[in-house]
Amino acid sequence: MAAAERMVVIGGDATGMSAAAQARRLKGPEELEIVAFERGSFSSYSACGIPYWVSGDVPERDSLIARSPEEHRSLGVDLRMRTEAVELDVAGQRVRVRDPEGTERWEGYDQLVLATGAVPVRPPLPGIDAEGVYGVQTLDDGQELLDSLERLVEPGGDSRRRAVVVGAGYIGVEMAEAFVKRGYEVTVLEKAEQPMSTLDPDMGKLVHEAMCSMDIETVLGAAVTEIRTDEQGRARAVVTEDAEYPADVVVLGLGVRPATALAREAGLPLGASGGLLTDLAMRVRGQENIWAGGDCVEVLNLVSGRPQHVPLGTHANKHGQIIGANIGGGYATFPGVVGTAVSKVCDLEIARTGLLEAQAAAVGLRFASVVIESTTRAGYYPGTQPIHVKMLAEHRSGRLLGVQIVGRENAGKRVDIAAVALHAGMTVEQMTALDLGYAPPFSPVWDPVLIAARKAAAAVRAG
Amino acid sequence: MAAAERMVVIGGDATGMSAAAQARRLKGPEELEIVAFERGSFSSYSACGIPYWVSGDVPERDSLIARSPEEHRSLGVDLRMRTEAVELDVAGQRVRVRDPEGTERWEGYDQLVLATGAVPVRPPLPGIDAEGVYGVQTLDDGQELLDSLERLVEPGGDSRRRAVVVGAGYIGVEMAEAFVKRGYEVTVLEKAEQPMSTLDPDMGKLVHEAMCSMDIETVLGAAVTEIRTDEQGRARAVVTEDAEYPADVVVLGLGVRPATALAREAGLPLGASGGLLTDLAMRVRGQENIWAGGDCVEVLNLVSGRPQHVPLGTHANKHGQIIGANIGGGYATFPGVVGTAVSKVCDLEIARTGLLEAQAAAVGLRFASVVIESTTRAGYYPGTQPIHVKMLAEHRSGRLLGVQIVGRENAGKRVDIAAVALHAGMTVEQMTALDLGYAPPFSPVWDPVLIAARKAAAAVRAG
Repeated sequence: MAAAERMVVIGGDATGMSAAAQARRLKGPEELEIVAFERGSFSSYSACGIPYWVSGDVPERDSLIARSPEEHRSLGVDLRMRTEAVELDVAGQRVRVRDPEGTERWEGYDQLVLATGAVPVRPPLPGIDAEGVYGVQTLDDGQELLDSLERLVEPGGDSRRRAVVVGAGYIGVEMAEAFVKRGYEVTVLEKAEQPMSTLDPDMGKLVHEAMCSMDIETVLGAAVTEIRTDEQGRARAVVTEDAEYPADVVVLGLGVRPATALAREAGLPLGASGGLLTDLAMRVRGQENIWAGGDCVEVLNLVSGRPQHVPLGTHANKHGQIIGANIGGGYATFPGVVGTAVSKVCDLEIARTGLLEAQAAAVGLRFASVVIESTTRAGYYPGTQPIHVKMLAEHRSGRLLGVQIVGRENAGKRVDIAAVALHAGMTVEQMTALDLGYAPPFSPVWDPVLIAARKAAAAVRAG
Repeated sequence: MAAAERMVVIGGDATGMSAAAQARRLKGPEELEIVAFERGSFSSYSACGIPYWVSGDVPERDSLIARSPEEHRSLGVDLRMRTEAVELDVAGQRVRVRDPEGTERWEGYDQLVLATGAVPVRPPLPGIDAEGVYGVQTLDDGQELLDSLERLVEPGGDSRRRAVVVGAGYIGVEMAEAFVKRGYEVTVLEKAEQPMSTLDPDMGKLVHEAMCSMDIETVLGAAVTEIRTDEQGRARAVVTEDAEYPADVVVLGLGVRPATALAREAGLPLGASGGLLTDLAMRVRGQENIWAGGDCVEVLNLVSGRPQHVPLGTHANKHGQIIGANIGGGYATFPGVVGTAVSKVCDLEIARTGLLEAQAAAVGLRFASVVIESTTRAGYYPGTQPIHVKMLAEHRSGRLLGVQIVGRENAGKRVDIAAVALHAGMTVEQMTALDLGYAPPFSPVWDPVLIAARKAAAAVRAG
């Protein structure tokens, strides 16, 4: 007997399967049929974990998988793998899908969830599609890369293998660490004049200095022009305007863009980044029964007031929960993000939230900007580590606008203090009174974030 | 030539010397003379660091000293050591002090700062003042304890030394860890039915279980009746109603009370805990030119709306800054605390903020209460550790009331997320949308605090 309503999910990862699971919790199979299509071979996995699988820190691929297709099916979600949605007919409330055998058919829906994720940026350079050039966006990508590294191992080889990573953003530095751990000689090529363009240049410089002492050759201002291949068509070097970097393996860490071709062709509203536009309930704008979330949508940056593409698993999971709650008859909304991100390269922790200087200026904000240096634990406590905190506060109002952190162990997650303060619209003066956890193993008596807040408050007062 | 104004500070530790230094920054010696009296032998030191000095983690006593008397003097503060204030004459604007030679004299003031700190609770039990029984409140205490441990070492002794710690609060568990590190057999005697009465019983139970696997004998419901001494008058055992615990050294960790005898005798207003009452600028209530801060005052708990004695170095330092700014002609206030504390015993991290269940009930709040278990990093990431988070949210409004955390590495400082949310008056529903830092080495994709917030929000909805 058919269910009262049919929910169709496109994309079997964080957003899609969280939405499915949450809707299923709220509505039984007689009320809601749930069908999900995933074009890849894996469901509900941690793409963010791929660098640690490549490094060997995470030995088993399957430990990155939160829930297998079989588990989803046992929970009452009809998940169909290696099945791609190729056309969306909004007026007809149906999706055309192609199954693993290449057979296509239309699937009707009452509620549609677009959770198509993002695709890696691949500039149209000669050799970019050669064997030996890898992205690390999906578990399939990661498997392909690891399989190729296996093949590379030639016992008795007389020199170290060389990995070239193109791009020094989050994925780039995480992959650089992964190859350092595997014993490769690692070169990171970055077009900009700093690694981590998610930081201001002064903070990016700290990251660059640290990377130089980590056995990672980091070349800035490096515009890649070509991937040079051998006779077998395998990548052998990355060529920039200035030099050539021999490579046994090339990894692309150039960021991602929303995978919204299907939505675009169906006439759904996209923002400047190409991400889908939704309302606060994660409904696609102008649509009653089409929902979208995760890496294929734009989200509101609560600090800048601007929409933004922020592909992060944590948002994707929240979106899925929200969509599932709403389809299931509950109520949930996603107010937006404050731009928090944290990462590490070897023992260096890098975090940011809110706006960079350039981002703040771009939306018309004037601000004071301070940088402080402190320690992660009491200065006398063993294992204390250096931490730099940069803080931006709005001129006159003193409202916190952003925080950037570069430090060692226990530095990064301090960004959460600022993230919550941004959500709450706190001023830096208010932040100086925050009752944060203090004991010598955890913090100096003035937490580094408080030290930054005091300095920022003084800068605001000084005008 | 005399300065225009004279500031007298009683107590040469965090509050007093921060106030002096901050006032000095704002006013030169011609405007403001600053005299400080400290009855002990050390200034501006980290009392919170004493357990780590006793354990040997911090090898040098002097690394606990942020600023020596000489440094203070070089910055223009006339700090007189081993000089005790014995009488305060408010009407006459003067303090009677006794110098190291026992000479007494009156010192006039225009602005007075009471930063007299706290004294350890010492129940009037037989033997409590015997040799071999130590508090760890001041650096002098710590030095006395360490000197005595030195004398204890008898090369070739055939059994391990035994330490008995009375009280299983923050200081108690930190001292237990210190003696474990020194190779002692450690027994902790706690009168209550749980260690860490700063936690709810269910969370305290987790601490108890963890301590049992740490080579720390923890006896609950143990009412100490006597410290038994030998013929030389040295402590040899701690006696409870039920048993006797042999001891080579006894440490008291029974908490502290405000050291306000001087203020009480002068008729200054004290709260129920015996702490001084101040206004938001840290001025003693009803006084124009007497200020107080640190361990000798009560502060407002912003969640309960009640005054409370919260002896913590982080508040003491803030108070000093605020008093110094106000005396120096600036403007600063202390809005209150939310009750944050963090500690560790061996590798167990313990944190809390806001109200416990009993505290919330005592001020008339009804609430939902949830506990979740998660991990400190992504479940698959090496080194991930267990974490329990308890969260209280007000019935109907859903306002966050408190968080308690018990976990391993990287668990404790997550309490800061909740601390900021408490300052901001957030609801647990709002907290579910917090944009916290996520990457596999730092957090599961749902930070444990978010998981708790989701569960608490559901509990509030369920009514």
